[in-house]
Amino acid sequence: MKSRAAVAWAANKPLTIETIEIGGPKPGEVLVEIMATGVCHTDAYTLSGLDSEGKFPAILGHEGAGIVREIGAGVTSVKVGDHVIPLYTPECRQCKTCLSQRSNLCTSIRGTQGQGLMPDRTTRFSCEKSEIFHYMGCSTFSNFTVLPEIAVAKVREDAPFDKICYIGCGVTTGIGAVIYTAKVWAGANVVVFGLGGIGLNVLQAARMVGADKIIGVDLNPAKVEMAKKFGMTHFINPDDVGRDKVVEAIVDLTGGGADFSFECIGNVHTMRQALECCHRGWGESIIIGVAPSGTEISTRPFQLVTGRVWKGSAFGGARGRTDVPKIVDWYMDGKIDIDSLITHTMPLDDINTAFDLMHEGKSIRSVVVY
Amino acid sequence: MKSRAAVAWAANKPLTIETIEIGGPKPGEVLVEIMATGVCHTDAYTLSGLDSEGKFPAILGHEGAGIVREIGAGVTSVKVGDHVIPLYTPECRQCKTCLSQRSNLCTSIRGTQGQGLMPDRTTRFSCEKSEIFHYMGCSTFSNFTVLPEIAVAKVREDAPFDKICYIGCGVTTGIGAVIYTAKVWAGANVVVFGLGGIGLNVLQAARMVGADKIIGVDLNPAKVEMAKKFGMTHFINPDDVGRDKVVEAIVDLTGGGADFSFECIGNVHTMRQALECCHRGWGESIIIGVAPSGTEISTRPFQLVTGRVWKGSAFGGARGRTDVPKIVDWYMDGKIDIDSLITHTMPLDDINTAFDLMHEGKSIRSVVVY
Repeated sequence: MKSRAAVAWAANKPLTIETIEIGGPKPGEVLVEIMATGVCHTDAYTLSGLDSEGKFPAILGHEGAGIVREIGAGVTSVKVGDHVIPLYTPECRQCKTCLSQRSNLCTSIRGTQGQGLMPDRTTRFSCEKSEIFHYMGCSTFSNFTVLPEIAVAKVREDAPFDKICYIGCGVTTGIGAVIYTAKVWAGANVVVFGLGGIGLNVLQAARMVGADKIIGVDLNPAKVEMAKKFGMTHFINPDDVGRDKVVEAIVDLTGGGADFSFECIGNVHTMRQALECCHRGWGESIIIGVAPSGTEISTRPFQLVTGRVWKGSAFGGARGRTDVPKIVDWYMDGKIDIDSLITHTMPLDDINTAFDLMHEGKSIRSVVVY
Repeated sequence: MKSRAAVAWAANKPLTIETIEIGGPKPGEVLVEIMATGVCHTDAYTLSGLDSEGKFPAILGHEGAGIVREIGAGVTSVKVGDHVIPLYTPECRQCKTCLSQRSNLCTSIRGTQGQGLMPDRTTRFSCEKSEIFHYMGCSTFSNFTVLPEIAVAKVREDAPFDKICYIGCGVTTGIGAVIYTAKVWAGANVVVFGLGGIGLNVLQAARMVGADKIIGVDLNPAKVEMAKKFGMTHFINPDDVGRDKVVEAIVDLTGGGADFSFECIGNVHTMRQALECCHRGWGESIIIGVAPSGTEISTRPFQLVTGRVWKGSAFGGARGRTDVPKIVDWYMDGKIDIDSLITHTMPLDDINTAFDLMHEGKSIRSVVVY
């Protein structure tokens, strides 16, 4: 079948809107009509050419929501008409990782996904000029896409696509890090480094689970107002307290250190601060941000021997098919706010604008509506 | 009262046996007759002058066992005649850390202990020439010593002092790291870097809790025989597989990586290997070894974002008064072996020999018997 799609032909080139040919769905796969998709920093990172796994030409996009329009042979977990969120972290429930019940990082299709291919090692996308690669197993910058059955989360039908698409990546990454990775407890003191989209979602999850002090750290005071709306109780601007005094300021403010800290920037220096501001004995620091390739984190081992814990979170530690529908429920129940985070909505034809807004720091999240 | 004691007068000088004067016990304190004490690498570290907290003259020693001979006013948790193990990590059950129930690193007397003093900021030790500092709150290289009530673990009376003294530090550090810090589960694959005394105790705890593969890593093949006796199922000599191929060898041997790794060397390079040999998604690495002052651990943050956890352990995460008596029970029940680890026993007059044996790598543990 035909679909309109934004194709990334090469690094650092604007996407072009094309009519592409879509094959499938093959056995175990589903054809999904994407109704809305967010545009995320990870799409921009790949488009910049810095992503060593990035392949071109590709259909980017990994933060969508849509409707199942066709199912391949043997598909049993969803049916035509179901509303779904595509999952770049699938949940097969059968691989060693899924069965470990200790991680969400399902490995069943990791190899082919990283190569821009479906599990049978082929692509479903093509146009006159060439075949086109998949991206993060999702490719939501196409009005229709094909996904393995294990890579879609079935969600309730009354949830608006142009909001819940954000749950496909950013919302779950932030909320999940608090709830599934860190398991923040009521009364905990929480510190969030970086008050962008992920940071705001960490804030609101910390509030949701009853954290006490919720401290935001950011160089940009313009972010304070929105952060307060999302639960921030205290703000630290490193330029106010001294960039090398951030740890001290947090230890003072919390009476000993954070119970949990979250690094949502992707900077190895703030990752170190995030660890070292944690409370001796039990404080846990969770790395969410993606650091530039080749950079390393470091600290004195004494920081760990005296009880701090250093860990990370990918897709918020959330199991896609199990936990994503719950987060949709929390949104529909008013427990979390997504609407305020979606600062721009546009048609597919204007998708390059979304990248421009992001680069200029003018959006929290732009959503393309088909 | 008078006591014989080995006094460390200055860095890098042999200890000398002196008759010292002991004051107290003051309110909340107990006078303990030390019956046996281990000589630990930490004593040697302080004696070497590298310990920035080390003060001289001092009575070193922190791995003892003995009998309460006198109690100060208000002491209720032990009585004269009780058998006890002195605790360099006390357990007050009232400070923020104890009440957190998330850490064993009781802070109630940390300040004075680090200064070589009792909680009232004075010392109980003196001789003709000068006052003498306490060490790690224990000073077990004296036939009699004074300790705060919260810094002794009451243990059963049928346990032999010359064996259970080792529970005062090394045994608990290794066993506890497995049981209290890591909470290793039955069937887990465990890797132990460094097969000295701590490493051997990690091995036997991993076996005790039903670990599957228990892999030892050491440059010295002479340690294999003892390690096997303590539960090691597989041995990796970095010089055999290639010093930069240790991670790869462990990942191969475990079919993906260790569920838990323990660094018992105190080397920041092996600390990195210990983290990176852990299984993607859930593997946890626990630092036990103490690295040289000023050195730092580092890794790519991707290692954590993909699910590995980096933590540390001090005194095995064990609560001194609560958990140490249980470890004594495990020894008396034959669940753990201590006898094989105590390679040398000597009178106080020969204590300098214990340091020599340790420096020459000829002992696992030397015990001084009074």
